[in-house]
Amino acid sequence: MSQIQLSHGGGGEETSRLIREMFYLHFANDILLAGEDAAVVSVAKKIAFTTDSFTVSPIFFKGGDIGKLAIAGTVNDLSMMGAKPLYLSAGFIIEEGFEIGQLETIVISMAQELKLSGAKIVCGDTKVVPKGSADQIFINTSGIGEILKPGISANRLHEGDILILSGDIGRHGAAILMEREGLGVSGNIQSDCASLWPAVEALIDNDIAISAMRDATRGGLSAVANEWARQSTVCLELEEPAIAINESVQGICELFGFDALDFANEGTFLIAVASSDAQRALECLRKVDVSKNAAVIGRITRKKEGKVILHSAHGSSRYLDLPKGELLPRIC
Amino acid sequence: MSQIQLSHGGGGEETSRLIREMFYLHFANDILLAGEDAAVVSVAKKIAFTTDSFTVSPIFFKGGDIGKLAIAGTVNDLSMMGAKPLYLSAGFIIEEGFEIGQLETIVISMAQELKLSGAKIVCGDTKVVPKGSADQIFINTSGIGEILKPGISANRLHEGDILILSGDIGRHGAAILMEREGLGVSGNIQSDCASLWPAVEALIDNDIAISAMRDATRGGLSAVANEWARQSTVCLELEEPAIAINESVQGICELFGFDALDFANEGTFLIAVASSDAQRALECLRKVDVSKNAAVIGRITRKKEGKVILHSAHGSSRYLDLPKGELLPRIC
Repeated sequence: MSQIQLSHGGGGEETSRLIREMFYLHFANDILLAGEDAAVVSVAKKIAFTTDSFTVSPIFFKGGDIGKLAIAGTVNDLSMMGAKPLYLSAGFIIEEGFEIGQLETIVISMAQELKLSGAKIVCGDTKVVPKGSADQIFINTSGIGEILKPGISANRLHEGDILILSGDIGRHGAAILMEREGLGVSGNIQSDCASLWPAVEALIDNDIAISAMRDATRGGLSAVANEWARQSTVCLELEEPAIAINESVQGICELFGFDALDFANEGTFLIAVASSDAQRALECLRKVDVSKNAAVIGRITRKKEGKVILHSAHGSSRYLDLPKGELLPRIC
Repeated sequence: MSQIQLSHGGGGEETSRLIREMFYLHFANDILLAGEDAAVVSVAKKIAFTTDSFTVSPIFFKGGDIGKLAIAGTVNDLSMMGAKPLYLSAGFIIEEGFEIGQLETIVISMAQELKLSGAKIVCGDTKVVPKGSADQIFINTSGIGEILKPGISANRLHEGDILILSGDIGRHGAAILMEREGLGVSGNIQSDCASLWPAVEALIDNDIAISAMRDATRGGLSAVANEWARQSTVCLELEEPAIAINESVQGICELFGFDALDFANEGTFLIAVASSDAQRALECLRKVDVSKNAAVIGRITRKKEGKVILHSAHGSSRYLDLPKGELLPRIC
């Protein structure tokens, strides 16, 4: 049998075999739910808890797949709170007829990505829906992390904080767009999909005074910057020339009429640090592969509270707004 | 705008508004994720962690809806581990064009069901997929609970333990089947969908010596009994006449050729207790509405390890096997 059948989600013998031979096999660890309704885990007193469902289309793309994305996405949400990712859940909704070989590729990809943060999948769920009731596969991952650095929050940005971006923007959105438009084979744009924990761990280990961190996923850098401006009632002043955009990404954006600032990233984050620690933060980040191109892109001021100002290379300025309307659907 | 648009899942202004005006409004509590990537919560050292995705069809049925089910299901998974449900996540995958009014009905239903256990939704995620890429709405809930009674496990059943069933079986499966066959209006079968925490809390408060608990969801009582027999390498001997089945449920099963023992329940659980505590356990359970019809249905023996034996009213016996093949799809 090479395709997922409804019986794989029925709760009987076939479900039981799929769980043993696929999920337990690849996600094996000392805690993984062994036939109970919930996993029992030990944690510190203060934990971070997050959830994300992944519906990306196509499910395989340059630089990753839905499995890698599902792990990196939740690992990153925890990391952004200064929390070390510990335990993850994995909930699969699979369309009847989905290739079991593809499922295994995805599951192996998840297992590999887990190694980068050391997080473990400790519980899971599998649902199979009839053909046509879902498009291929959706994955939900929820995660628990131990907060190593308390107080990191988008509500605590300070005037004078320096804004650092961990790398160039827009690659995930552009990679997905290329695949959709059938340009995936010819294109050289890879999604930035990656676990950011190693970069965050470096900042925490070096005791950098982090005010806030946020990965620039749906809505891109524009969304993060605007959410921060609104939450802390401050002004984010960004220097456009300092924001790195890959030439091919820029080309794709111009071709399709998108702004790379609105494009989703899946392994790029914005950090606000005390100005006294900015240089050290940059040095830490640049030693870690996932953030080796980190750069200062702006600062927190009181110029126009609740707004984001983008300064161009030519000395002109404009407000950068929250993206509106239909961005790319099913980007993550 | 009365329907969900792709932009509601885009991560921009519309997403932000939906989250504020729908989810924050109805799920309001002192911890609910306020614009961060993860919620920060305080917990005990030992916690239970579980996840479940809900794809039930139809999404509204007699006795509940997908929202009530999504809360009760995860609350029950935690409860079965002797864990008090504390924090839940809610991940929505919504089909473009879904009625916002229906979403609100579901969200309100979730909020009401939360009150029965006192659990709080502290983080969430919303994805919108294009029309035809999902069927209406899928909900994932993951949950964290504080373990009040450690050591409850399907691996720890003892010879001599008494098996108690909290109520009659098969109502959820039968209710869904009735709806699908267009008999929902005429039928008098209500899903048993309910939060079991009040029943479990009563057992824990009275310090009942619980060996294991499990709600009989997908695969029904047959699946739970067989999983327990296999995990603890014991024999479960069940008395068929003691297992309550509503007359209408029995009728539906005969009509469609199903066995009520294989039918899903969403508010009925099996409990194994030390024989010395069986009577007290029954008394506790019968005082709680959700388990007022609790009854002893069998015991743990060594007669045939790894197997379930069903004794009929006429003195004959048969093995009860794990359900096989296509049960009802999208039952939960």
